[in-house]
Amino acid sequence: MSENKYDEEGFFAKYAQMTRSQQGLRGAGEWWLLKQMMPDFQGQRVLDLGCGYGWHCQYAMEQGAAYVMGVDCAKRMLDIARVQHSDPHIEYVHAAIEDLHLPENSFDIVISSLAMHYVADYEQMMTKIHGWLRTGGTLLMSFEHPLFTANGSDWIYDEAGHKLHFPLDHYFQEGKREAFFLAERITKYHRTLTTYLNTLLQRGFVLDQIIEPYPNEEMLEWEGMKDELRRPMMLMIAAHKQ
Amino acid sequence: MSENKYDEEGFFAKYAQMTRSQQGLRGAGEWWLLKQMMPDFQGQRVLDLGCGYGWHCQYAMEQGAAYVMGVDCAKRMLDIARVQHSDPHIEYVHAAIEDLHLPENSFDIVISSLAMHYVADYEQMMTKIHGWLRTGGTLLMSFEHPLFTANGSDWIYDEAGHKLHFPLDHYFQEGKREAFFLAERITKYHRTLTTYLNTLLQRGFVLDQIIEPYPNEEMLEWEGMKDELRRPMMLMIAAHKQ
Repeated sequence: MSENKYDEEGFFAKYAQMTRSQQGLRGAGEWWLLKQMMPDFQGQRVLDLGCGYGWHCQYAMEQGAAYVMGVDCAKRMLDIARVQHSDPHIEYVHAAIEDLHLPENSFDIVISSLAMHYVADYEQMMTKIHGWLRTGGTLLMSFEHPLFTANGSDWIYDEAGHKLHFPLDHYFQEGKREAFFLAERITKYHRTLTTYLNTLLQRGFVLDQIIEPYPNEEMLEWEGMKDELRRPMMLMIAAHKQ
Repeated sequence: MSENKYDEEGFFAKYAQMTRSQQGLRGAGEWWLLKQMMPDFQGQRVLDLGCGYGWHCQYAMEQGAAYVMGVDCAKRMLDIARVQHSDPHIEYVHAAIEDLHLPENSFDIVISSLAMHYVADYEQMMTKIHGWLRTGGTLLMSFEHPLFTANGSDWIYDEAGHKLHFPLDHYFQEGKREAFFLAERITKYHRTLTTYLNTLLQRGFVLDQIIEPYPNEEMLEWEGMKDELRRPMMLMIAAHKQ
């Protein structure tokens, strides 16, 4: 992404306090479903686009990956990844994922968690990923749901402060959005479901799974989690290169 | 569907006044995109589930279909179809599409326009369609978008009567919805995007195209059409049996 909010000290300090930052995979609401979508990592070369703290890099390694390249544009993220999730076979690369140049057919698996809504040119990104993957290779990615990015990301409240509903608007106007995350202004890119899915089909991917994560019974006990049943926040897609 | 609103005289009279009823395909906002998704009908056996007035049956025949079966639960619809879109090779069948029993591998193409959100058991319906299609056969269907069915289907207005936004709620609570269509209460079934798409993948369909229709430039001149850029109303899916 052009704007690298995650390297700003104040924002990063707040990000570091999030449950998913402190607890890793088990603090991430979608993990119980994403885990089930994960491919077999045994002996595989894995690319993690937007690796953050490196939780998924470490997971791939624990599941038998031969090599993992974790890429992130936030140096502060990688500093922590290199300490907390270090491994001789994990290579952390400091780069914007859009600017990466890698050899064709050099990876068996590409994973990307909650990064694609920061990418301005999704079509180009998918063309690149398609090239980096070997034939038969897997792409597994999560991103913010088109519903969630269309019109900012806050609820409509009543006078007593209760959430009335989630407002949808501007759905077919793709492009830049100024949203608020951790009380800071952040730039995202909205695109329709049509664009997310058809771009993959047009590039020669075969869709294997499409899942909108929701909280499981245990998570519904967490504060505010029941509201996550009211609108989808993420979309997760598993596909393979034909 | 269990409740057959389209055979009630008052409701049907109003439906008959809609642009899509009077003008057929060119009065249907999604047709310019749906037409591009249509398979090659030449010599094919076609099943149209929820055929209504028979516009798509007639279209398939004009494009060279060998045989078309149009099925609808509304007798009033079929009465008009048999007059307006009659052909020796079109057979109109009065039945609820969920209750149909047809031979395995008996169709090359199944189309269904705006009917699936009336079907209570989508999983069973897709199992049946998968059976009726030959290997390699095409399924093309449109239905109301999960965003549109989740929480009724009306906008939130300000005091001056302007549309503020479209309210989203209850997304992960699948099941029956009482909605208003043509000022009458009608029963629909809401299901998530995950259910719509993954059910197809689990049955052995390969997804070919996923499109949310929007008005083209000409249609944006029609009254109220600009609001159709604010939220998706339909989802159209093309798939084939592996």
